[in-house]
Amino acid sequence: MKATVYVTIKQNVLDPQGSAVQGALHSMGFEEVGKVRVGKYLELELDTTDRAEAENNLKAMCEKLLANTVIEDYRFELEG
Amino acid sequence: MKATVYVTIKQNVLDPQGSAVQGALHSMGFEEVGKVRVGKYLELELDTTDRAEAENNLKAMCEKLLANTVIEDYRFELEG
Repeated sequence: MKATVYVTIKQNVLDPQGSAVQGALHSMGFEEVGKVRVGKYLELELDTTDRAEAENNLKAMCEKLLANTVIEDYRFELEG
Repeated sequence: MKATVYVTIKQNVLDPQGSAVQGALHSMGFEEVGKVRVGKYLELELDTTDRAEAENNLKAMCEKLLANTVIEDYRFELEG
């Protein structure tokens, strides 16, 4: 089973990396770029066929390691 | 217009960050986790209504700044 996890910074939390990317794009002439938010994208292969268990475990992985839930949101998709 | 950019490490390139995450998840008891790949996920607001121009500019942004095309792949989606 393949899992895709998206970790994004919460809307009301400052994203200095996003601001830096926005500034860089502006200085390169891409003036149309507004707010930029940078997050993480993870692809995991899971050796299981139990979808419910996979979802529970993924939730635990995100809460405990992959996302800092104080400042980040996460969501995941399961395939296969 | 809102753009979402995914930057991933190419399949044949080593991903030490992914390996570290895999090792950490194993040591936390998630033995079912196989290969892990870590990438970037960017959300950009674009102040334009010209979809074709937005696509061209996004391609240029990815090639020049957002992705290192020697070791990374990118793809993007446009909304609105």
